[in-house]
Amino acid sequence: MKKHVAIVGATGAVGQEMIKVLLERNFPYQTLRLFASKQSAGKKLTIHNQNFIVEEFHDHCLNNIDIVFGATDALVAKDIAKQTKLNHALFIDNSSAFRLDEDVPLIIPEVNSSDFLTHQGIIANPNCATIIALTALQPLHAYANIQRLIVSTYQAVSGAGIYGIQELQQQIENIAHQHPIQIQHFPCQIAYNLIPQIGSFHDSGYSEEEIKLEKESKKILHDPSLLVNCTCVRVPVIRSHSESIYVEFKQPIDVHTAKQLLQQGNGVRFIDQNDNTKYPTPLDTSNQDYIYVGRIRKDPNPCVHALSLWCCGDQLRKGAATNAIQIAELSL
Amino acid sequence: MKKHVAIVGATGAVGQEMIKVLLERNFPYQTLRLFASKQSAGKKLTIHNQNFIVEEFHDHCLNNIDIVFGATDALVAKDIAKQTKLNHALFIDNSSAFRLDEDVPLIIPEVNSSDFLTHQGIIANPNCATIIALTALQPLHAYANIQRLIVSTYQAVSGAGIYGIQELQQQIENIAHQHPIQIQHFPCQIAYNLIPQIGSFHDSGYSEEEIKLEKESKKILHDPSLLVNCTCVRVPVIRSHSESIYVEFKQPIDVHTAKQLLQQGNGVRFIDQNDNTKYPTPLDTSNQDYIYVGRIRKDPNPCVHALSLWCCGDQLRKGAATNAIQIAELSL
Repeated sequence: MKKHVAIVGATGAVGQEMIKVLLERNFPYQTLRLFASKQSAGKKLTIHNQNFIVEEFHDHCLNNIDIVFGATDALVAKDIAKQTKLNHALFIDNSSAFRLDEDVPLIIPEVNSSDFLTHQGIIANPNCATIIALTALQPLHAYANIQRLIVSTYQAVSGAGIYGIQELQQQIENIAHQHPIQIQHFPCQIAYNLIPQIGSFHDSGYSEEEIKLEKESKKILHDPSLLVNCTCVRVPVIRSHSESIYVEFKQPIDVHTAKQLLQQGNGVRFIDQNDNTKYPTPLDTSNQDYIYVGRIRKDPNPCVHALSLWCCGDQLRKGAATNAIQIAELSL
Repeated sequence: MKKHVAIVGATGAVGQEMIKVLLERNFPYQTLRLFASKQSAGKKLTIHNQNFIVEEFHDHCLNNIDIVFGATDALVAKDIAKQTKLNHALFIDNSSAFRLDEDVPLIIPEVNSSDFLTHQGIIANPNCATIIALTALQPLHAYANIQRLIVSTYQAVSGAGIYGIQELQQQIENIAHQHPIQIQHFPCQIAYNLIPQIGSFHDSGYSEEEIKLEKESKKILHDPSLLVNCTCVRVPVIRSHSESIYVEFKQPIDVHTAKQLLQQGNGVRFIDQNDNTKYPTPLDTSNQDYIYVGRIRKDPNPCVHALSLWCCGDQLRKGAATNAIQIAELSL
């Protein structure tokens, strides 16, 4: 039976990507309605040659909808949840509002699809950096059990939405014309620069994004004892996130085995560094659904079972939209 | 007694920075001669309002020179060393030619200046990523003894010299005008991209740059048992390198103590993250001699004495030219 589907926040970077992915994967919807704020209501979106008119999100607008995808901030997500609860609809939320709630499963289909069975109306889509890291690591985790992660990220400006992409491009253009640059959505200049801050800082010194990666990884892997140390950095790249990951396992695993596991991994493409120019880059991995893994190496510490690797994945696709649609597919 | 000084490779990014730093620090030279390849001979350089004429580097050109700074590749460095040996001159070499030679000290003045006493005519300037990491870490190492480093770098295009800077700028310009880009000095596009390769790969999977950081750190800290796991990545930034460093110590050290040590550290400026926007960025730390450290945090593993931090430093200044001049100052 085909579903009545809605996307709330449809005009944002993730919302538009959700429309694309629903169409590309032939998601079996009977109706697809797009909602956004008052300012965007009436706007026409043309995606993959199909036209959509954006409606205003308001109370009761989600009546008769079976599956709602949320691509909004956490506040709006709570409004959506009130409506989907009344309507007994399934709400797949990309915001951080419910990710750590005990009765809300947090799902990467390649990693913990069985958590789908426990949902009570809401399923949370993890943070993009978490999805990319754990999709890359899952084939290794299934074999040797991760016990510790030390991650340094290189995160694209698309993580800050359409305005993030525009801000980088505008700054680059202004610098080229020797005009003063404008800083609006990032804490400081991102063109030709790096910003080691994503979200505000907690007392521990870790940023919100770093804490998300820690707490979400523990929840998804069902392992509160997992050790995660993360440094999240914004880089002047458009839309694929990259991560330099040190991973320590409970059981032994060698580089050769890891390569074989990654070659067969679900949702993963392994790039073997068998010559001098083969590894994933953010540019090569944009506009794709796979997480690309390469540069796999043994850590020199003989006392641990540890590897280092490099992975890249499109932040708007598998890091957000594709993962949300995959979750919805579990309901079909 | 003032010295007769020469720079070989004076027209490159590091060579020109060496001239600047010699002038700025009032290095007591009697004569300063600049050498480069045949193509650059006769070229006029104006630096800090002083004019210099570049001479061709050839056999015997370094007769009567007391101190030679090398800013060339490893092959030319070996030619320079032959001349400085005959002339009993001091050769401070920025290439990788002699860095791991047993009878050549490898010096960061803030870290191991006493190694100067052991030199036999050649002193090697470490790799830029090594200088930046160890200058940042030395105040902590003196207190608690480093036993392990896991480093992810974010390295500026200036590390590939003047042509590296030009290639990034040209690619950005071509993309803006929708012209095809050219790839000459980097293995792939660097504009809006990241390249997880600096130097060629060894069989272990580690790149030359990663192995330099490992081997040079062991030599400088006189600790062959030091564990170093490095991932080196080129980023579209002009001239400051950044590094995300996980550091494990032999003795306990807490964040508060680490901050105090860094505040008093030699060659280091500590940026305390006491509000939401205080941390070093490559842009803020360019054209300066200090290594800036911030974002210091405790690692969550209770079984180790470990911290994470973020540091940035100008790759051409302290990462190369300034460190070389500081080494020469030890001879005065």
